[in-house]
Amino acid sequence: MSVRAGVLGATGAVGQRLVQLLDPHPEFEITALTASESSAGQSYREAAKWRIDSPIPADVAEMTVTETTPEAVSDNLDIIFSSLPSGVGRDVEPAFCEAGYVVSSNSSNHRTASDIPLTVPEVNPSHLDLIEVQRDERGWDGALVKNPNCSTITMVPPLAAVEEEFGLDRVTVATLQAVSGAGYDGVSSMEIIDNAIPHIGGEENKMESESRKLLGEFDGAEVQWHDARVEASCNRIPTLDGHLENVWVDTVDETNADDIIEAMETYPSAELHSSPDDLIHVFDDAKRPQPRLDRTREDGMTVTAGGVQETDGGVQFNCLAHNTLRGAAGASVLNGELLAKQGYL
Amino acid sequence: MSVRAGVLGATGAVGQRLVQLLDPHPEFEITALTASESSAGQSYREAAKWRIDSPIPADVAEMTVTETTPEAVSDNLDIIFSSLPSGVGRDVEPAFCEAGYVVSSNSSNHRTASDIPLTVPEVNPSHLDLIEVQRDERGWDGALVKNPNCSTITMVPPLAAVEEEFGLDRVTVATLQAVSGAGYDGVSSMEIIDNAIPHIGGEENKMESESRKLLGEFDGAEVQWHDARVEASCNRIPTLDGHLENVWVDTVDETNADDIIEAMETYPSAELHSSPDDLIHVFDDAKRPQPRLDRTREDGMTVTAGGVQETDGGVQFNCLAHNTLRGAAGASVLNGELLAKQGYL
Amino acid sequence: MSVRAGVLGATGAVGQRLVQLLDPHPEFEITALTASESSAGQSYREAAKWRIDSPIPADVAEMTVTETTPEAVSDNLDIIFSSLPSGVGRDVEPAFCEAGYVVSSNSSNHRTASDIPLTVPEVNPSHLDLIEVQRDERGWDGALVKNPNCSTITMVPPLAAVEEEFGLDRVTVATLQAVSGAGYDGVSSMEIIDNAIPHIGGEENKMESESRKLLGEFDGAEVQWHDARVEASCNRIPTLDGHLENVWVDTVDETNADDIIEAMETYPSAELHSSPDDLIHVFDDAKRPQPRLDRTREDGMTVTAGGVQETDGGVQFNCLAHNTLRGAAGASVLNGELLAKQGYL
Amino acid sequence: MSVRAGVLGATGAVGQRLVQLLDPHPEFEITALTASESSAGQSYREAAKWRIDSPIPADVAEMTVTETTPEAVSDNLDIIFSSLPSGVGRDVEPAFCEAGYVVSSNSSNHRTASDIPLTVPEVNPSHLDLIEVQRDERGWDGALVKNPNCSTITMVPPLAAVEEEFGLDRVTVATLQAVSGAGYDGVSSMEIIDNAIPHIGGEENKMESESRKLLGEFDGAEVQWHDARVEASCNRIPTLDGHLENVWVDTVDETNADDIIEAMETYPSAELHSSPDDLIHVFDDAKRPQPRLDRTREDGMTVTAGGVQETDGGVQFNCLAHNTLRGAAGASVLNGELLAKQGYL
Repeated sequence: MSVRAGVLGATGAVGQRLVQLLDPHPEFEITALTASESSAGQSYREAAKWRIDSPIPADVAEMTVTETTPEAVSDNLDIIFSSLPSGVGRDVEPAFCEAGYVVSSNSSNHRTASDIPLTVPEVNPSHLDLIEVQRDERGWDGALVKNPNCSTITMVPPLAAVEEEFGLDRVTVATLQAVSGAGYDGVSSMEIIDNAIPHIGGEENKMESESRKLLGEFDGAEVQWHDARVEASCNRIPTLDGHLENVWVDTVDETNADDIIEAMETYPSAELHSSPDDLIHVFDDAKRPQPRLDRTREDGMTVTAGGVQETDGGVQFNCLAHNTLRGAAGASVLNGELLAKQGYL
Repeated sequence: MSVRAGVLGATGAVGQRLVQLLDPHPEFEITALTASESSAGQSYREAAKWRIDSPIPADVAEMTVTETTPEAVSDNLDIIFSSLPSGVGRDVEPAFCEAGYVVSSNSSNHRTASDIPLTVPEVNPSHLDLIEVQRDERGWDGALVKNPNCSTITMVPPLAAVEEEFGLDRVTVATLQAVSGAGYDGVSSMEIIDNAIPHIGGEENKMESESRKLLGEFDGAEVQWHDARVEASCNRIPTLDGHLENVWVDTVDETNADDIIEAMETYPSAELHSSPDDLIHVFDDAKRPQPRLDRTREDGMTVTAGGVQETDGGVQFNCLAHNTLRGAAGASVLNGELLAKQGYL
Repeated sequence: MSVRAGVLGATGAVGQRLVQLLDPHPEFEITALTASESSAGQSYREAAKWRIDSPIPADVAEMTVTETTPEAVSDNLDIIFSSLPSGVGRDVEPAFCEAGYVVSSNSSNHRTASDIPLTVPEVNPSHLDLIEVQRDERGWDGALVKNPNCSTITMVPPLAAVEEEFGLDRVTVATLQAVSGAGYDGVSSMEIIDNAIPHIGGEENKMESESRKLLGEFDGAEVQWHDARVEASCNRIPTLDGHLENVWVDTVDETNADDIIEAMETYPSAELHSSPDDLIHVFDDAKRPQPRLDRTREDGMTVTAGGVQETDGGVQFNCLAHNTLRGAAGASVLNGELLAKQGYL
Repeated sequence: MSVRAGVLGATGAVGQRLVQLLDPHPEFEITALTASESSAGQSYREAAKWRIDSPIPADVAEMTVTETTPEAVSDNLDIIFSSLPSGVGRDVEPAFCEAGYVVSSNSSNHRTASDIPLTVPEVNPSHLDLIEVQRDERGWDGALVKNPNCSTITMVPPLAAVEEEFGLDRVTVATLQAVSGAGYDGVSSMEIIDNAIPHIGGEENKMESESRKLLGEFDGAEVQWHDARVEASCNRIPTLDGHLENVWVDTVDETNADDIIEAMETYPSAELHSSPDDLIHVFDDAKRPQPRLDRTREDGMTVTAGGVQETDGGVQFNCLAHNTLRGAAGASVLNGELLAKQGYL
């Protein structure tokens, strides 16, 4: 029997990707779509101005969009996926949890709160058990689970592979991020054509804190953040989709390029519908990965890496992931699949 | 009286910039233009297919292009500027030096040879004295002086400012480089539109070695390379001009952002025609510098910086320079001005 | 003595170009800057977030921005330049005229009204005399003069040259328009990277009606619109500045390419400060004009043309102009210069 | 039983698309791949430097590339698809026909020869019978069939729909063409970023002649070209794939937008594997079609149209097709399917 799913913020860049992923999904069925007050009452077709390069799913197109409140959506929902703007989601998502809903959210609020699981199912599924702590503390029947920022997700699987075998001491990362990460109207064409912007507000901090929480240990009561030093510099460039990252790691143990590549290639994926066969694909060719060529590998859920080289005391590599699939909508759907598998729905 | 200048490789991307800079230059006068054999005998207008967004200088347009050999150019030359492809220049430039010419070259060959000065006039003018060593060893009447790679020049002035005040221990740099750095046909549109390429062949090595030579000490006999650890990762992105770089520095002495900014802002420029008033301009705004907005500051000769932040043990900043002006043609012209000032012409 | 000028809507894409042009202008002096209510009271530096690739003029940067009402600006103004959004300008501009101000406006409202002069000084300066009709009808002490839409201005000078010699029967035009024509936030990067949009709301109609008014005859009482059939199709493409247009003309008289080229090249410019030496520059090379190479010719005030070919019954050509200079801010400044010359200030 | 297919020029932009389409094709099986002499003997993986954003087909990747001569390929071939550069194909393709091969070619040579069928299977399948004339005249056992240029294919289906119902008198078309139409290295990034080029050598003539041949009548002996006047202006813009075209038609009979839309929407597709369900899809939204959103509709084989408006004496509309799928590789495969169906293989 299929799981009935609602999508909060269904008309935005990530919301449309959620609809694209959930519509053909074998486990989920879209039964509610919300957007801002001004869109409520419209058909999804009208409200969304569909901007993905495959046609809008025919059945979803005619659904009526409602306001984003627990009262406005129908009761018959087993899970809610949220891609609300962070400021909007901050109060709305807890309101849904209090009303008894399980929420898998891509919204950046609450990600580093001590009782909110921040999970990438292939990397730290055990953190999901924080839900028990959360319910105790907040008295919720529902639950709130977060996936990290798109730029964080891109580097975390390869870092987890390195951590497991050789330990992480210091991580330095420069990102080349696609415009879709800022939403449909987030970056104007006059800002970015023939240009690059060397700062994305709040992004550096998110990469530093979220990656340390994700790579931390959950001891049954709280997550002990990883103590690696993480420094990020985030750039916006004129690409549509796919975040590319240059990463330097100082490892705890000595290592070499071959062992790092093997650690990445053998790092296990998860047994979930949306997990790729290869969580990390490593290219031999130093000119790969490239956003346009590699972002859709395995439906955009594989993290690709390349240019792996040993350095004095560590390793340098590049990695890439599709920011609105692996890095946002796909990440939320994966968390939904994990929630279903572990019996939370 | 003006200095008579020849340009080797005058039809390429950097060669056209050399012509653009030298034509109105108060000290130099273009008296010879060379290109590949197939262009010899054509007017510069025909051979160059001028691609800069200001009209081709009218007088230069009608000059006849010659082959790139000491025999083919007229004797009446005081200095030669070379922007030959590296492989072509490797033997041709020394042949001109042997024939008695002083050559200011942007070509990447010989840059790290022990008797070839690699100079940025505002940073290490004293290295020019290597010419004496060079003449002793090679028996040349002429001389060969190099400017560094465009990606190296971009970061060296701010690094020199940090080095002088606080010392450099470790430098990590990620570049976002414009397509003009690869020449007119170096990057096809299908490679780079909606894309980025995380590797530029040889560029990482150039940044690591050239910056250490530039920041080294010349002791009268040789240059003692700076012993900082330098690691680079070089990316090509869809911008036309202007290389943007994210730099992390571990300093020898403790420092803070304000002191670093002051060191950069007060780092002296040179008293040469093409040197800018401010060698380094530091922005308050973390979103600057940006290639399109900042690459032409002071005729494209200023290095702009921004996002200066202290880190645990050092500093992080971004910097930018126009890669074919400050980073190539302008760098060669500056070396020519320094050669003239120090009496080598 | 300089003419004191105010700029309405000074923070937008065209407003910043007006400031860039007026600041060094020998006849005008900026003495007032207005913007929307939310910016009033801020310095221009704060309010404008200057986005042109030359530094913000230092003196203008510290001026205080006021609201856009006749009451809010100082009395000491001789002329007002307006680049207000059309909807805002519709009522505000007449209010300034009623308060006695002479307004040179780029805003698209009122352009086809029978008593409002729509002028390109090199093409139809005599239409300025409509001001007498306007003052009679509206009882204004001030006056309102318009320049046409950027896409119209681009083709009107070459069309005027053809009209004068051979007559216009039918004009078909396809445009390739730059994103700056829609203002700083008018086209999002996700809409236009690796894309093109085959429609610009209202633009086709503007080209059809404005060009017929501009090319019409003013008989002392009204403008008899030209009766040529004009059909336009307007496309947005991923260029920053410069509108390129493909034009087909059926002429009244027989003609040929050489005569058309001569008509264009000899079409006179005006004796105004901002008029270029060559109003129309015609390239031999069929691959020109190109936006990036040709948009800044003569400070962006020349219209460039190329690909002139005779057809059965007419001629086909391409033309290009800088849409925010020749096509907007420069057009308004030119009208201001014409108003000054003809004694209206 | 599957048809054994060879691909001439398999490493180029269209050649790679042919491999992408033929590898999973239910009727064809790739059994030979050719390229230039320098690639002969390499694996296809090495020679092709695969640049499509889906992985290289695993089995094809290890095939050995041969030279492009009838002697070099194996005898066991039922059909040959050619995407050779025009100059290379001019002599090579007839050599294959003389050696007995049936060649479906995308190469632009010979397209307007009187005995060479130029076919779009959904539009003029009867022209294929020219093969009999061809064999008589040339004494070939093989045969040579051409598909038109990518820019021609884009407009021909909607023109055929208009022709059938209302007749064509005059066609004026402006194109906005993607860079992939020029091959992988055809347009350098410095030529096209922030730019457009208003001329593509030979393209205007191809559109004018090929469309008239395609829309002509085959009377059993020769094709009577359609006598409509066709005028084209071809522009290159910074998009990767998908040619967008603005078309004006003067029709023979009076018409209106609704009837034109109906004629387009009901124009039949063909019963061939690669023909789309809807040959022409017409959008209501005047802002569509757009290259990035619409080029892959029905695997890139549908022609999309929009902005249909009646004019005085005709109609204006926009249309779009994927230039390397519908416009090149897919067009050749379709002709192959038609050849198979009609018993020529």
